[in-house]
Amino acid sequence: MKITALDIWRAIEEIRGKAPLIHNITNYVVMNTTANALLAIGASPVMAHAAEEVEDMVAIAGALVINIGTLSDHWVESMFRAAGEAKKRNIPIILDPVGAGATRYRTETARKLIKTASPSIIRGNASEIMALGPEKGARTKGVDSTALSHAAIDAARDLNKTHGSVICISGETDYIIDIDSNIIEIRNGHPMMPRVTGLGCTASALCGAFAAVNSNYALAAVQAMAVMGIAGEIAAETAAGPGSLQTAFLDTLYCLTESDIEKRLRCFILNN
Amino acid sequence: MKITALDIWRAIEEIRGKAPLIHNITNYVVMNTTANALLAIGASPVMAHAAEEVEDMVAIAGALVINIGTLSDHWVESMFRAAGEAKKRNIPIILDPVGAGATRYRTETARKLIKTASPSIIRGNASEIMALGPEKGARTKGVDSTALSHAAIDAARDLNKTHGSVICISGETDYIIDIDSNIIEIRNGHPMMPRVTGLGCTASALCGAFAAVNSNYALAAVQAMAVMGIAGEIAAETAAGPGSLQTAFLDTLYCLTESDIEKRLRCFILNN
Amino acid sequence: MKITALDIWRAIEEIRGKAPLIHNITNYVVMNTTANALLAIGASPVMAHAAEEVEDMVAIAGALVINIGTLSDHWVESMFRAAGEAKKRNIPIILDPVGAGATRYRTETARKLIKTASPSIIRGNASEIMALGPEKGARTKGVDSTALSHAAIDAARDLNKTHGSVICISGETDYIIDIDSNIIEIRNGHPMMPRVTGLGCTASALCGAFAAVNSNYALAAVQAMAVMGIAGEIAAETAAGPGSLQTAFLDTLYCLTESDIEKRLRCFILNN
Repeated sequence: MKITALDIWRAIEEIRGKAPLIHNITNYVVMNTTANALLAIGASPVMAHAAEEVEDMVAIAGALVINIGTLSDHWVESMFRAAGEAKKRNIPIILDPVGAGATRYRTETARKLIKTASPSIIRGNASEIMALGPEKGARTKGVDSTALSHAAIDAARDLNKTHGSVICISGETDYIIDIDSNIIEIRNGHPMMPRVTGLGCTASALCGAFAAVNSNYALAAVQAMAVMGIAGEIAAETAAGPGSLQTAFLDTLYCLTESDIEKRLRCFILNN
Repeated sequence: MKITALDIWRAIEEIRGKAPLIHNITNYVVMNTTANALLAIGASPVMAHAAEEVEDMVAIAGALVINIGTLSDHWVESMFRAAGEAKKRNIPIILDPVGAGATRYRTETARKLIKTASPSIIRGNASEIMALGPEKGARTKGVDSTALSHAAIDAARDLNKTHGSVICISGETDYIIDIDSNIIEIRNGHPMMPRVTGLGCTASALCGAFAAVNSNYALAAVQAMAVMGIAGEIAAETAAGPGSLQTAFLDTLYCLTESDIEKRLRCFILNN
Repeated sequence: MKITALDIWRAIEEIRGKAPLIHNITNYVVMNTTANALLAIGASPVMAHAAEEVEDMVAIAGALVINIGTLSDHWVESMFRAAGEAKKRNIPIILDPVGAGATRYRTETARKLIKTASPSIIRGNASEIMALGPEKGARTKGVDSTALSHAAIDAARDLNKTHGSVICISGETDYIIDIDSNIIEIRNGHPMMPRVTGLGCTASALCGAFAAVNSNYALAAVQAMAVMGIAGEIAAETAAGPGSLQTAFLDTLYCLTESDIEKRLRCFILNN
């Protein structure tokens, strides 16, 4: 795998040119900002969760993004329906297991979705990915962030081997673990970003946009996470706080240039 | 019909003075920005969708805005209940058939709502309005935007004759088709507006605010669309992208003056 | 009770240090802005409403915030479940009875929640609090705002005696009525704030954040309302309208200093 600013830029141009429909079954908190981020990068978002229509909707989509941030039973049912249809049609599925590990309902729903849908990409923070790793694994608490990363990477490798999913662990450094257990590190982003709700969810949605134009899903995930981090950095330069960071982030996604990516991309490949 | 900046301004002053309650049964994506737009123009938004209360709520409202952007069965049931009560009480109903044509569930729900509720105003983009036209009509795909407009206007005229609704087709140029099949064109707005999610939904909500103070619903729709377009233009002058466009749009709605409207209004009446 | 800028500042520092998890079962309109406000002040928001998980979630939370702004039957069921668990575990419960008085469903749901859950803090506007007062009480309409305040304070005293809840009546002046029927007045804030949707809901969520670090709930409510008003004042100084006010409000919460509070706090205690 080779990651270049030029390839990222070409992927953005392809998104802007094709405006792929991204079907989101996501949480209430982030629907507005997720839709706005997809529009800003050039994709066409749609939110639809009714059992009556999710199969029809996903059939015309370029990617399906499932996010369990405010799950409930009818929504979960629709997630499975949409995922089944997407799988049948070979449409990439991105899973954001928000809050896995916090309640049994979330952990189990995420596990079942992974088992049934074999998502193309799973994106979560370290504790969410660890919660989805081997069940026998001890839960990690109060460890330093290096240990946390290692434990999460182990869980990611396991998920990856078992289900074939590309795993993206987001945090100060983002890690993408591909199908051959290579690790790609992205060191873009800004410390104020976690103070804006739903930027993680936005990252998952952008993974959908990039996966819609690139069937190398590891590369798509890397491109999406790099764009997130770079746009966040640029936005933070003018932001007075998390309110204006969200606004500037959307402006930046819309205005992003190849030169912005060229100058800022901090991406490292660690071979297996 | 005569459209003047002074009349639009008087309608805004009436909204600001009376603060009519606008009852929205709308989609999750736009609830926040719709409520903010209604507050910024001077109306009082309420969102309520429970079967247990929609009839009580619409009974104290100046208009009912129904938007099927994230529909599901319980919500649809409440839309019918609220619409029935609104019709009984002669409260104007605005329908936004988001995504009609994309899935059968949306198209059929929108058709049934139109048949049952005879909305005062239906506002959608060209493809949504066409999806609601005569069922025998061939679906238009890949045609240029002039042909699209013509096909949508034909569908609008049909809806208008059959159900008595004022139809508003929004796009680069907005078309309002009134009860006598007159066409009013509004050429305000800015190309960045479609990159902000839910500005179409906001337009429908503003139609509700203007219809609450003006029983000439064609005029109310024209006024709402002109205000949308003008506020969008002004906001775009300072916006660095779609994030700041949304923020500036709300600021502009709040600060709009008669002189802003006077200077910018581009409205043309084409008689039948 | 003594209210000082230093105590408010220490509470903010404690929130920032501990990042208490605030479990919100709230309305669709404000989920995003509420989560952002909690993040900006330093707390950790979570939104979760499924019957399957609310008890697990509240068990790890520092406070539970229940807001009936877009209620429906399944959500109400979860509110009761979560409240029951919170009560059992002595976790503070904040209730925001949005729209009580507007429909019977809202008034009755709010009354039942109060009876069952004995919330630590109830925060609403004057008409909502009055709607929850003694049922025999005549409804107050068209009275001047002084009479409105008096009637609301009477209702608050009654709620306070019957259920032991701290009552916060927000408006141009905020009133907090404590367990001994003392009244604390806060005269911070800005007239543009009611033109931003959900700042009242944000106030309730911040009551949760302060209650999570301070078991004197009257003091927690006073601190939260003072911070709301002060942040609103500062934000309004640079805001061009309600759009930029919301953005600047979040920025201000994030950047707030002890000196901001010291300079602006306008808080008065009227003993019983």
